[in-house]
Amino acid sequence: MEQWANWAWIVGVVGFIIAFLMYLNLKKKDAGNEVMQDLAKQIHEGAMVFLRREYSILAVFIIIVALLLVWGLGWQTGLAYIGGAICSIAAGFTGMNSATMANVRTSQAAKTGGLEAALNVSYFGGGAVMGISVASLGLIGVGIFFYYFNSMGTLQYLSGFGMGASSVALFARVGGGIYTKTADVGADLVGKVEAGIPEDDPRNPGVIADNVGDNVGDIAGMGADIFESYVNSIIATIAIAATMSLGALGWEGAQTSYITLPLVLAVVGFITSLVGVWSVKVWGKAGPAAALRYSSLTAAVLFLILAYIIVRSMDVHNGVFWAVFWGMVAGVLIGWVTEWYCSASPVRKIAEASQTGPATNIITGLAVGLESTAIPLFIIVVAIGFSAYFAGLYGIGIAAVGMLATVGATMAVDAYGPVADNAGGISEMAGLGPEIRKITDELDSLGNTTAAIGKGFAIGSAALTALALFSAFGQAVGLEFINITSPVVVMGLFIGGIIPFLVAAMTMTSVGKAAYKMVEEIRRQFREIPGIMEGKGKPDTAKCVDIATKGALVEMLKPGILAIAAPIAVGFILGAEALGGMLAGATLAGALMALFMANAGGAWDNAKKFIEAGHYGGKHSDAHKAAVVGDTVGDPFKDTSGPSMNILIKLMSVIALVIAPLLV
Amino acid sequence: MEQWANWAWIVGVVGFIIAFLMYLNLKKKDAGNEVMQDLAKQIHEGAMVFLRREYSILAVFIIIVALLLVWGLGWQTGLAYIGGAICSIAAGFTGMNSATMANVRTSQAAKTGGLEAALNVSYFGGGAVMGISVASLGLIGVGIFFYYFNSMGTLQYLSGFGMGASSVALFARVGGGIYTKTADVGADLVGKVEAGIPEDDPRNPGVIADNVGDNVGDIAGMGADIFESYVNSIIATIAIAATMSLGALGWEGAQTSYITLPLVLAVVGFITSLVGVWSVKVWGKAGPAAALRYSSLTAAVLFLILAYIIVRSMDVHNGVFWAVFWGMVAGVLIGWVTEWYCSASPVRKIAEASQTGPATNIITGLAVGLESTAIPLFIIVVAIGFSAYFAGLYGIGIAAVGMLATVGATMAVDAYGPVADNAGGISEMAGLGPEIRKITDELDSLGNTTAAIGKGFAIGSAALTALALFSAFGQAVGLEFINITSPVVVMGLFIGGIIPFLVAAMTMTSVGKAAYKMVEEIRRQFREIPGIMEGKGKPDTAKCVDIATKGALVEMLKPGILAIAAPIAVGFILGAEALGGMLAGATLAGALMALFMANAGGAWDNAKKFIEAGHYGGKHSDAHKAAVVGDTVGDPFKDTSGPSMNILIKLMSVIALVIAPLLV
Repeated sequence: MEQWANWAWIVGVVGFIIAFLMYLNLKKKDAGNEVMQDLAKQIHEGAMVFLRREYSILAVFIIIVALLLVWGLGWQTGLAYIGGAICSIAAGFTGMNSATMANVRTSQAAKTGGLEAALNVSYFGGGAVMGISVASLGLIGVGIFFYYFNSMGTLQYLSGFGMGASSVALFARVGGGIYTKTADVGADLVGKVEAGIPEDDPRNPGVIADNVGDNVGDIAGMGADIFESYVNSIIATIAIAATMSLGALGWEGAQTSYITLPLVLAVVGFITSLVGVWSVKVWGKAGPAAALRYSSLTAAVLFLILAYIIVRSMDVHNGVFWAVFWGMVAGVLIGWVTEWYCSASPVRKIAEASQTGPATNIITGLAVGLESTAIPLFIIVVAIGFSAYFAGLYGIGIAAVGMLATVGATMAVDAYGPVADNAGGISEMAGLGPEIRKITDELDSLGNTTAAIGKGFAIGSAALTALALFSAFGQAVGLEFINITSPVVVMGLFIGGIIPFLVAAMTMTSVGKAAYKMVEEIRRQFREIPGIMEGKGKPDTAKCVDIATKGALVEMLKPGILAIAAPIAVGFILGAEALGGMLAGATLAGALMALFMANAGGAWDNAKKFIEAGHYGGKHSDAHKAAVVGDTVGDPFKDTSGPSMNILIKLMSVIALVIAPLLV
Repeated sequence: MEQWANWAWIVGVVGFIIAFLMYLNLKKKDAGNEVMQDLAKQIHEGAMVFLRREYSILAVFIIIVALLLVWGLGWQTGLAYIGGAICSIAAGFTGMNSATMANVRTSQAAKTGGLEAALNVSYFGGGAVMGISVASLGLIGVGIFFYYFNSMGTLQYLSGFGMGASSVALFARVGGGIYTKTADVGADLVGKVEAGIPEDDPRNPGVIADNVGDNVGDIAGMGADIFESYVNSIIATIAIAATMSLGALGWEGAQTSYITLPLVLAVVGFITSLVGVWSVKVWGKAGPAAALRYSSLTAAVLFLILAYIIVRSMDVHNGVFWAVFWGMVAGVLIGWVTEWYCSASPVRKIAEASQTGPATNIITGLAVGLESTAIPLFIIVVAIGFSAYFAGLYGIGIAAVGMLATVGATMAVDAYGPVADNAGGISEMAGLGPEIRKITDELDSLGNTTAAIGKGFAIGSAALTALALFSAFGQAVGLEFINITSPVVVMGLFIGGIIPFLVAAMTMTSVGKAAYKMVEEIRRQFREIPGIMEGKGKPDTAKCVDIATKGALVEMLKPGILAIAAPIAVGFILGAEALGGMLAGATLAGALMALFMANAGGAWDNAKKFIEAGHYGGKHSDAHKAAVVGDTVGDPFKDTSGPSMNILIKLMSVIALVIAPLLV
């Protein structure tokens, strides 16, 4: 069964072909009338322009870093680094391509075939293509490099692949996060608030940028994030397995079994993901919400059954299965808790507090966000406890693999949301009428729920992956221990804790700066383009797309460079022990901030929607105005700064793992 | 010179007598006309009622904990615990007594003697009595128990004293923080916003509670906080000295020299503090701002000179002086950075952002707060680096002692602020006219600056003290190392990180709850008491004092119990190593949150004042309304949740140190 690991890349290639066939199938679908096609084309092109420009900047960056890696650590690491970056870029491109093609076809399906048809297009054409691509590219990339490095006996170079994926992910997440909120805040402030026209109104020059933003942030950004967790959980576990001493642990089995197990589980998880994706056709009869929920659960349950059989039949310690089990369970639980904080009584509490004005809305939202960190992190603590109890440090790594093994299915549900959101936007802009809008609204509101779950899952998996990388780093530097009472480790711990706070501050400020330019431009167009308000003058949407693109690309550099330079500086100046402390501090502060910001933002958003649904005076009441303030504060929280934390903690850990040989 | 440590308590007694004489001198001063005296009496009684009720609840709690300590660790720890609690309570009572006597006499001095006379009364009568009392009681308490335990050879029991001081401090800070903001928010919302009457208007039923709150929060709360840092820095360093191995370090000198040095330095620092306090009379000619600034600097410079001589003449490693030096420098620097974030360009940035509404005001303020954590924590990192480089773990402890040695002078400047604030309130309520109000306003605005510096100093010293306690804990449990890559330590780290976020959420929610009741009551009085608005009906101020008192006392229990129970639970369930991880996580997250919340709150406050001074449209402009929202959010940030973090991290560390013998 160990051989499966060597053929993982072939499974990945087959998977990618499946995704491509699904994509071709999607392409054949009806893209609606001319207006719809034109809108979709604008969104598609805007998204592709952003990706192209982002990736051109990244290319320079990647080549420089690759050369440095070749110089410092040998050509293998440099090559693996480029491989990881390319796979991540490919995942982003594929996802964006299918998502920006599925949106308009979902609108059209809603028009001609109703709810179920629209769900099918948005899920299979948008979400599933993305989900399967992400998993496939992970298997292909990690698989090929594993196959090669393993046969050469140079597995230590594999971490370069993870660093490549992380570098791209950082810029994709930060840049995408800034883009989406620049466009959103800009379009909303001038369009909805100042000019009083509805959301997604075609007269609003920022509306295309806003729809592009959904794809850039929630498809490309989220995809790169999950891709990074996926490959790094596998790589970290392989690294732990390669350096651990079975004798000291008193475990049975061969080292190769432990080394190959993560990839074997990934292959199995991939196959069960395909079943999960397909099961939406079966569950579809129970309604869209049940269909999506059950699809992930189907994949998860099947995976656990197969994982149990595999662990028992492979020559490894039996406790390993329980680590996988707890990783998977933790992922599911964290998703649920996040959903609760963004929907149930916390949201009502914020809505209630909105009655006494924006200040109490903000205070309550912040309190909810702060409180919401406790249970998810406690779940992580319990997962660490159980998995380490059953299988030591290897257990922590394999738990992360377990959490992420069925990523094809979970990512499909995740990526479905922004497609549905876009479909709603296109329906509105193309004037498809209220019945169609009702269908897309239903899909969109379901997308908000899945997004909340997805965000929690992304944070949980990022934290566990970062801890797995951290454990791998600890072994790689060959220190018997990293002593937290040693002053240099405390120094690292504090420096590590500062970074997430600084990156959060930077990214929040960035959104403010870029959104300000967007506001100015939209105001200018409303003022200067004759007949724009009567629908006669054509708004210059390309200009707004350009502003969001430039803003995102300029602003993503500073936090990106800080995140990369900081661990390297600490590692070389203060040493490996201090770097270990730094990773611990950054992971803790980053996970806390990620949960705080994502959940506060989600709760504010839904408190506003709760009031809009008619509570506490409904739309246009004072409570609603207060809730809009909270929602606006929550926007960069949940879509820019919060998600950046996920990448930050993984990136710093994987950099540490890569440079570990230089610190010994 | 080692003998000084044994006589530290006598120096303390002499100091306390000096403070008492200053108090008697204050009492003799003119307390103004009957209206003023009546107002002062109401404030004084409100404050004393709160303290009495708080301390009765605490008494029960202290006795229970003391019995548990006697049962688990022997009568010595229990006795020391009670001693620490009593000294902290005594410091609170003394400070409150003098502060609530100095406020009205400051108003009267402003009326009869002008600015310099008013400064003299508020500083010497209010601030200095508090500062000298805090330092004296610290020397008396630690001194007596040190003398006894040292002669018995049972120094390990000394940490009980620190835990007693910490327990009282936690409830004083949390309770005081909730009290002051309940009263402030309640009085402002109904009085200033709804009824449109000025601040400190005698018709407002909440106005006495508001003035009581300044004393309860900024005098008793801050005093207990600094007292706790002061005694715990000494105790931690003694604990480190008692268990370290001079041979392994290769240091010259006798162990007793290292053990006694912290107290010797405290004695010297106390004496230089007296000089610093007295120097205000000399510097007074340069204006109030310079006088206060130079008084602390005088004490600091003198202290460093004497500390150098002492270290050279005592039988200890020479590097120790440099640790003291860096501790002192770090304290001063952190104060300056905090002041900068609460005054200069960050405040202008927030004010500017207020022009586009409350949402951008909040986003900018949060970003400023997040960013403001970096430099102060980096200063701590550098201080740790230098002090550990020069003197190992002992260096970290003695750096904290150095930072806090001149606490008499720094606390005097700190405590002067709320006295000046109260004096302003009394002048307004008693209708003393604009010229008097101008003097008290000037003193008050200076008080805001010193408060910002004081807050930064409190956080910095809390972080360094917590780290010193943490180091002492590491030695006390006798573990060779606490390995941060061990799963159980990671679990502890994450649990530790959760606690500050939870306590912040709890305390923010508490203020909201209690303030709501206050708002209801003040509205009721405005509605039901006939002629209240015309100044004929007398507002029931006692009722408002009662609501704030009850609210604070009820709400302080939950976070208090969490903070105490969590480290005990982790220690006994997961073990000493996990507890070490927990302390590291809690200290990191707590220090980050303390700086974030204090600085964001301070910056919001001053952004509002900046606009009120006529910028961006001045008072009643839209920018001002947005800034008021930020200020309201900042209130619990800077005065309740933020300061609670200081205590939280010290309390958890000292509890760990106390229970260390049970975990070995």
